[in-house]
Amino acid sequence: MLQYKDGGLIPAVVQDADNGQVLMVGYMDAEAVRRTLEKRLVTFWSRSRREYWTKGETSGHVLELVEVRADCDGDALLVRARPHGPTCHTGEQSCFFEPLDPARIGDAAARSEHRQGGE
Amino acid sequence: MLQYKDGGLIPAVVQDADNGQVLMVGYMDAEAVRRTLEKRLVTFWSRSRREYWTKGETSGHVLELVEVRADCDGDALLVRARPHGPTCHTGEQSCFFEPLDPARIGDAAARSEHRQGGE
Repeated sequence: MLQYKDGGLIPAVVQDADNGQVLMVGYMDAEAVRRTLEKRLVTFWSRSRREYWTKGETSGHVLELVEVRADCDGDALLVRARPHGPTCHTGEQSCFFEPLDPARIGDAAARSEHRQGGE
Repeated sequence: MLQYKDGGLIPAVVQDADNGQVLMVGYMDAEAVRRTLEKRLVTFWSRSRREYWTKGETSGHVLELVEVRADCDGDALLVRARPHGPTCHTGEQSCFFEPLDPARIGDAAARSEHRQGGE
C-alpha cells in the first residue's frame, strides 16, 4: 500500500515524459491518484486551497498522464506526463528554473525544529 | 527563504544529471542542504533513523552533487547529481522502478484523513 503521510498525502514528482525535465512537485491523496488515473490528467490535492486541483484546468496547461510509478518503499510517486504548455505559473516550463541561492537555505533555527516536534 | 514544512524538512528530488532519470526523493533540513553543498555529496535527514545520512556512505554508491535548484515557491528542491552505482537499495538504478499497481492506491479512509487532521 502507498504510504500517505503528513496529513494523508504523498509527494508526486512530475516529469516531462518526452525530454525528462522535472516540472514540479505536488501532493496527492488516494482520491487524487485515482482521479489522475481515470481522467488521464494530473490532479493534486491543493494544501493551500484544500481542494482537488487538476493542473491546468483554468490555464489549459494540463499535464496529460503517461504513467505513474511508485518508489521502492511506496512513499513517493513519479508521474510521467506530457505538458500542454508551461507548467510553472511564472511561464517557465519547469517550476525548478532557479539554482538555489545559498542565502535562502536558512539558519539553525529551522534546523532544530524537527528534533523537538514529532513527526 | 526555503519553506521547511512537516517537521522542518523540504523534499529533495534527486535526478541523474547525465541521463535525466529521477532516482529518489529524500528530505533535507537546512543543515542537510548545507552539508550537501559543502561536501558535494547528497546528504539527507533520515526521518526513520533521525540522523543525517550521506547517501552511499556505507555502500559507496554516493550521489556526487552537480547542482541544487529550488522551485518557484521554495518548498521543494531538485538535486542534480552523478550516481556512483545504483541509487536504490534493491540494486536498481532508480527507486522508481515499478509502475504503480492500482491495488496499492488505498481506499477512502486514507482519503478523508487530511480533512479531519490539521496540516
